[in-house]
Amino acid sequence: MKIALGQINSTVGDFQANYEKILSFINKARKQKADLVVFPELSLCGYPPEDLLFKKSFAKINKIYLVKIQKDMPSDISVILGYVARHKDKIFNASALISKKKILDIYHKMYLPNYGVFDEKRYFAQGSQARIYLYENLKLALSICEDIWSDEFFYCLKSSRYRPDIIINLSASPFFAGKLKMRQKVLSQRARSLKAFVLYCNLVGGQDELIFDGTSLAINTRGKIVIKAKSFQEDLVLFDSKKRYSPKAIKVDKVAQMYEALILGIKDYAKKNNFKKVVIGVSGGIDSAVTLALARYALGIDNVIALIMPSRFTSPQTLRDAITVSKRLGLEYNIIPIDGVYFSYLSNLNSYLKNNKRYDVACQNLQARIRGNILMSFSNRFGYLVLNTGNKSEISVGYCTLYGDMVGGFGVLKDVYKNKVYKLANFINKKEKKEVIPGSIIKRAPSAELKANQKDEDDLPAYNILDKILKLYIEEDSSKDAIIGLGFPAKIVSRVISMVDKNEYKRRQGPPGIKITPKAFGKDRRMPITNKFVY
Amino acid sequence: MKIALGQINSTVGDFQANYEKILSFINKARKQKADLVVFPELSLCGYPPEDLLFKKSFAKINKIYLVKIQKDMPSDISVILGYVARHKDKIFNASALISKKKILDIYHKMYLPNYGVFDEKRYFAQGSQARIYLYENLKLALSICEDIWSDEFFYCLKSSRYRPDIIINLSASPFFAGKLKMRQKVLSQRARSLKAFVLYCNLVGGQDELIFDGTSLAINTRGKIVIKAKSFQEDLVLFDSKKRYSPKAIKVDKVAQMYEALILGIKDYAKKNNFKKVVIGVSGGIDSAVTLALARYALGIDNVIALIMPSRFTSPQTLRDAITVSKRLGLEYNIIPIDGVYFSYLSNLNSYLKNNKRYDVACQNLQARIRGNILMSFSNRFGYLVLNTGNKSEISVGYCTLYGDMVGGFGVLKDVYKNKVYKLANFINKKEKKEVIPGSIIKRAPSAELKANQKDEDDLPAYNILDKILKLYIEEDSSKDAIIGLGFPAKIVSRVISMVDKNEYKRRQGPPGIKITPKAFGKDRRMPITNKFVY
Repeated sequence: MKIALGQINSTVGDFQANYEKILSFINKARKQKADLVVFPELSLCGYPPEDLLFKKSFAKINKIYLVKIQKDMPSDISVILGYVARHKDKIFNASALISKKKILDIYHKMYLPNYGVFDEKRYFAQGSQARIYLYENLKLALSICEDIWSDEFFYCLKSSRYRPDIIINLSASPFFAGKLKMRQKVLSQRARSLKAFVLYCNLVGGQDELIFDGTSLAINTRGKIVIKAKSFQEDLVLFDSKKRYSPKAIKVDKVAQMYEALILGIKDYAKKNNFKKVVIGVSGGIDSAVTLALARYALGIDNVIALIMPSRFTSPQTLRDAITVSKRLGLEYNIIPIDGVYFSYLSNLNSYLKNNKRYDVACQNLQARIRGNILMSFSNRFGYLVLNTGNKSEISVGYCTLYGDMVGGFGVLKDVYKNKVYKLANFINKKEKKEVIPGSIIKRAPSAELKANQKDEDDLPAYNILDKILKLYIEEDSSKDAIIGLGFPAKIVSRVISMVDKNEYKRRQGPPGIKITPKAFGKDRRMPITNKFVY
Repeated sequence: MKIALGQINSTVGDFQANYEKILSFINKARKQKADLVVFPELSLCGYPPEDLLFKKSFAKINKIYLVKIQKDMPSDISVILGYVARHKDKIFNASALISKKKILDIYHKMYLPNYGVFDEKRYFAQGSQARIYLYENLKLALSICEDIWSDEFFYCLKSSRYRPDIIINLSASPFFAGKLKMRQKVLSQRARSLKAFVLYCNLVGGQDELIFDGTSLAINTRGKIVIKAKSFQEDLVLFDSKKRYSPKAIKVDKVAQMYEALILGIKDYAKKNNFKKVVIGVSGGIDSAVTLALARYALGIDNVIALIMPSRFTSPQTLRDAITVSKRLGLEYNIIPIDGVYFSYLSNLNSYLKNNKRYDVACQNLQARIRGNILMSFSNRFGYLVLNTGNKSEISVGYCTLYGDMVGGFGVLKDVYKNKVYKLANFINKKEKKEVIPGSIIKRAPSAELKANQKDEDDLPAYNILDKILKLYIEEDSSKDAIIGLGFPAKIVSRVISMVDKNEYKRRQGPPGIKITPKAFGKDRRMPITNKFVY
């Protein structure tokens, strides 16, 4: 039996486009003589559809397109496709088996994730019956995403009289660093333990904050990967049950993966939200340089505009660096100094914002907000998407200005700690085989340059310490005492934690951005703003 | 038996303050000779604690304070208190029965809501055993919030050998218009059907977007309300099982209720987030006038500052109205014209934002953003909370400027449709027995005044039509066809729906605000930004 995995990039709610894509993949698989082609979880409607699922019309239209596929596909190939099934007042995360132009069976996902970014119990009813399909002499067990992670589900398969030869998994599993390893571990264990092949078909593409990486897999009965589809792009791979495969070794370069995830995130957010061009505020610092480079490689030279907005606190070297990086990337750039507008605000507000505090936070933020306004003016006039350049370290502690450098439709580095931003910079230079990001940007101590002689590390702990504390506190929910117990200075830990807690209100109004860690800000971490818990 | 309902306003994570409050209510109840005092759901830790629940230290500290209450409370009264119980690796939404300085029993909530604003299945394990406590000859059944709404739970009580005499319900039930009626209906039905009293103890207070209204109830065996605690403030009421009560009729003035909810929302957000003073941009229009009045009655004359920021598009009458409403409310106000800054931006951006489009959206938004920046400068310099004045109608269709009039820490009218804003204005004038909100503001056609002769209703459908379409689409998830089927013009419906869908990105970055309808923007409505669904 030949089974194809149709690793497609569908768009939430774009039924016509998803239908066309699915049909073209079915035809491709047919040309390769596949007997069956499997598509990812909910790939007909896109994942996650969130509260669109509460609209009755959503499941209805989705059913209409399922029937269209059933009618329009060739009759000599079978399909297993993820879609939303309605039954009476309930909806299910389901898959349809279509064969010979008939919908032969519908399976309802049994284990619904309701943690992290997932809210499936908000929407779906639980399925209650597993499925094993017989094809010639092969027994195929069906599972949708979380099902195969569930020990209960697995024991149920294991104790079944019908021991499956192949376990098929339709998945929409979001990427984060380390996720591939986790996935591989679970799938290998399932394969070994059941002595069955696992065919894992994962969605690919960006949807708001989530990146689906694809990387569909075929795993043999000894738990070894034998087929691996491409990561971060569409692919169609063919598994032949009669063929003998040799195991593949998989090497993962974490920085390269992060790079690919961010590139796909930018590309898909822009495309799926109908933006052709983006505009980026380029300061001459590392964050905006890396964002600019990522955008350029994601969208092309003609679609990225740099705005350089110096003030009298911008050092000549910083300004030169901002110009250099824009030039080296081959991009259009504009220089718009902000001092004139800044002084006009100050003279307007002079009697209120007394002069003796001229360089306080109010005045610093004012500059960041002027830049934000200029970026938004370009967005409003020309329809450009503003890409935000804030990194996870500064967003965590609120070292950023709400409505200032926090403006933008989409945050490229939102989930990338400062230290990782440097790694990306070096990776990009290495990949491009030239110093597109100037060495002086990489070497210079980071500064917001909102007052004279400002350095990030005067206001914050050194990033190599800060990033570690943040990871423990945010991603691992470690308590203050536990972090101090690991040897970090108590005073710094208390200060960092208090900054993270106090700045929830800022994050609530920040742009969405690409998730690349196990716990990103957004749906992953739902913290109250009003919160007096300090432990 | 005398049972007190301790309707308290606790703060999320503020264990020390919640502990003190609970102890003081226990002592008050004891003075009234209560045998038992009941506190609301999770009132020891505050509700909802959201992802704070993932911190192991949260349940730990909460347990420490439970034990403190057990030790420090008098021995001649019993308590039923909502808290987070940890058992092995699981946590439960629980209640402790404390009597004679001992924790006698712990009940785990059995039905966990995971819809609307609720995510309880994200956190809590399900309880599996109901509780009926015997006190002298009375049987008390215990339930936590959702439990009593569950038919399954109710049938389980009904079929029990131990038919309860009294059903106690610990609740944290968020307010929205019409919720009291819903609650009363369900509780009455339960009481009548079981021929038992229902003692319903609800939380009171604001927590981010949610308002808990209190309004604790005692309902007799015929389903009639016999005791009703205050709404929107703390209260302690006493139910005596030996006393005969006569039914109370309850009248609900919907606008008065909305007013009280908004007042409490402002008060608690400011207090619980340590703000003393607020600043509000006052345009001379209805939204900011009503917001200003609400803030003034919530926080007092000395704690509300009005900023009036006219441009050359501000009509003399609008400016006069802005001054008049500030004066009539007795508030400090500052007039800061924005034209100087506006022209300095324009001259700075002149070569980019070509003059021939001088009054387009880019230029209009620029003005709104200058005002936003000035408000934020006051916030940054003086530590004032910026209250946002946007209403639900404009937020729905995106008729507002991101980072402009959308700035602010908290949105007072975020869930109030435009037509309801007028109702509030009239209500306030009636309540104050003088025209604090000038009639000319109420009568004038609304305008953003960002270009000459602009009127909302040139850009939008009339609000009385718009608001109805919005309610159907947003709160009832009606499809385009269904709304057109009700008689609304197809062209208008399509346009409104498309505006709502396209502006999800703006709402994602808007301030949190007070929920007063069955479905508010925020946790209630989780829509993807990237979304091509158009039905």
